[in-house]
Amino acid sequence: MTSPDLSTDAAAAALAGIGREPDIDVRDAHARVWWSVLAEPGDGAAGDLVSRFGAEDALRIALSDADDEWSSARARWMPRADPGSIRHALDTARRAGATLLIPSDSRWPHRLDDLGAHTPHVLWVRGDLEWLEASPTVAIVGARAATPYGEAVAADLAAELAASGVIVVSGAAYGIDGAAHRAALTTDGRTVAFLAGGVDRAYPRGHEALLSRIAASGAVISETPCGAAPTKWRFLSRNRLIAALADAVVIVEAGHRSGSLNTAAHAAQLGRALGAVPGPVTSAASAGSHRVLREFDGVCVTSAADVREMLGDAVTHGRQEGTRTDDTTRLLDALSARVGRDTEDVARRAGFAYADAQALLGLAELEGRVARGADGLWRSARRSE
Amino acid sequence: MTSPDLSTDAAAAALAGIGREPDIDVRDAHARVWWSVLAEPGDGAAGDLVSRFGAEDALRIALSDADDEWSSARARWMPRADPGSIRHALDTARRAGATLLIPSDSRWPHRLDDLGAHTPHVLWVRGDLEWLEASPTVAIVGARAATPYGEAVAADLAAELAASGVIVVSGAAYGIDGAAHRAALTTDGRTVAFLAGGVDRAYPRGHEALLSRIAASGAVISETPCGAAPTKWRFLSRNRLIAALADAVVIVEAGHRSGSLNTAAHAAQLGRALGAVPGPVTSAASAGSHRVLREFDGVCVTSAADVREMLGDAVTHGRQEGTRTDDTTRLLDALSARVGRDTEDVARRAGFAYADAQALLGLAELEGRVARGADGLWRSARRSE
Repeated sequence: MTSPDLSTDAAAAALAGIGREPDIDVRDAHARVWWSVLAEPGDGAAGDLVSRFGAEDALRIALSDADDEWSSARARWMPRADPGSIRHALDTARRAGATLLIPSDSRWPHRLDDLGAHTPHVLWVRGDLEWLEASPTVAIVGARAATPYGEAVAADLAAELAASGVIVVSGAAYGIDGAAHRAALTTDGRTVAFLAGGVDRAYPRGHEALLSRIAASGAVISETPCGAAPTKWRFLSRNRLIAALADAVVIVEAGHRSGSLNTAAHAAQLGRALGAVPGPVTSAASAGSHRVLREFDGVCVTSAADVREMLGDAVTHGRQEGTRTDDTTRLLDALSARVGRDTEDVARRAGFAYADAQALLGLAELEGRVARGADGLWRSARRSE
Repeated sequence: MTSPDLSTDAAAAALAGIGREPDIDVRDAHARVWWSVLAEPGDGAAGDLVSRFGAEDALRIALSDADDEWSSARARWMPRADPGSIRHALDTARRAGATLLIPSDSRWPHRLDDLGAHTPHVLWVRGDLEWLEASPTVAIVGARAATPYGEAVAADLAAELAASGVIVVSGAAYGIDGAAHRAALTTDGRTVAFLAGGVDRAYPRGHEALLSRIAASGAVISETPCGAAPTKWRFLSRNRLIAALADAVVIVEAGHRSGSLNTAAHAAQLGRALGAVPGPVTSAASAGSHRVLREFDGVCVTSAADVREMLGDAVTHGRQEGTRTDDTTRLLDALSARVGRDTEDVARRAGFAYADAQALLGLAELEGRVARGADGLWRSARRSE
């Protein structure tokens, strides 16, 4: 193939008419669009190369005929290195009115950066994401073959959380995903759908209208180029984006080998708060949820309040971590927002001497991190309510 | 009152005709019967006094008019220090054919010793306990107001576990308890019922025939004297015995404020394996089970295999603890019998350097504690299967 023209002029021309931030780095964006076509989602070698050399230089290395550590990856990238494919992807995006986001953009969702070398090269978005970064997010996902019980619980959780400003993230599938998106929309809450294929293609087809409604107030997002078909691999890769964008992941119903368990595994790996809604042990549709409780030590979620507690924990333990000492972390780990505990119990759980626990609890109380109830017992302060 | 005659002759006369081990220490047994009448179950002052001075001398101190640290406890013991009450309790036991057990007896269930100062002074038993000490035990308890779902799950668990030699322990109440006992009996398994009142009184009355069947192959046990009524306090105290006798405690269905949560709390405090059967979040009868999963970090129990895994863990982690190093404990804590984990994952979970984890896994493999599957992943060996 001809080496691609990665000049500023070529990049600006290629991206003309594509929705994007006005001050986008067009050369980086152009190279990244190439990457999104060359490499499958989650291609670690591609991610590694881009993070080490930047998208442009990485692309030059990828498309060279060097005999180096990238040779085997190059063998899978080269067949796709066709300027026609890039043009086609961009033309399709233009027609679909999809917006291009790259990691340096102000609206890029930085939760995704936790994916490291598996961070997407670009995102294609139908809708907007301006409100996303500052909002708590919960992924509500589950089986396509959901029961009325599961859909009802998913809808109740999504409606109650969305109504209080939590962004509901899901995968737009039939069953649990659809119930969660739909319920969020009924409360005028925002919801985000991650697709496995291009955002120009409604998948499943029966959710075309739902996806348009999601895009109107929230966002439909994919890392795959417009025109790309949703493959099994892309579904699994898409699940890592759902997990990464969420402060907390809740599996509502899932079969024993459901794809939702893959989302749960990503959530666990990323350190996201992870929970599952239990159901009858006699219901096959809850077998995967119970696996999340057993095998991933997931939180048993019975209500929106339980999810809010997870979000509080997620915010406290994850995103605000920098502001806390290790001792405070151990102290707060030993406390619950629901169950009151006496000082002795807290000391034992946290592994502090009684006097140290007493002193730390006093400090934490002054900081509003913990509260002592009328019963004399300590509870962690709820952050998200 | 007259000071009680605690001589060997008086003791032998008092206990004449009472079922007991032939070589029982009659003076200790006689004094302990006094204690079981004087003090309510779980009276820590009584337990403390007996463990410090032995039952006989403790009784002399209790019934003296000294002005010492026991004065306030003495005020609650004295009104019951009536030789007529002791005689009545023993006469009732004789008529009921109840057997007396004291901690020095060979058939005393030593799991109860974990209760420390709250170990019962005596046990009254209808049936036998010879088979108990060597068998794995599981408590299956739950709400009286159970649903057909809960009773069916309790029965399935109890039948499958009892059929494989696990002793099913419960509280003989209507609902979950009754379903568990009944199912264990149908498989010719042994089952143990702890009563809050005397073993001579069937409680609930409707379970009189069931209690007789339990006693015929298993045992009906109480720490309260024959003739004692089941009071609310005695129910709560009884729950600690159920928890202490069990290697694993499983809550099947329980309301939000069910007494079963009290059993769960005792299990947690005693370090017993603790689990709960989930149900629909829309079912009030499962609210307590879900609290066990959330607030006590209980294991999500969906099948008898899950309980067997808990028993394996209980046996490994609890009763054989003396034979293990701390490092092995941490290593085994990082492993699951169900989910395979690679060395890196095990190292991370256990907080070991990779090389240390590798070495410890190798040792543990030689000892048969862990196994490496064909997939190259480590699993803990199942002890109970």
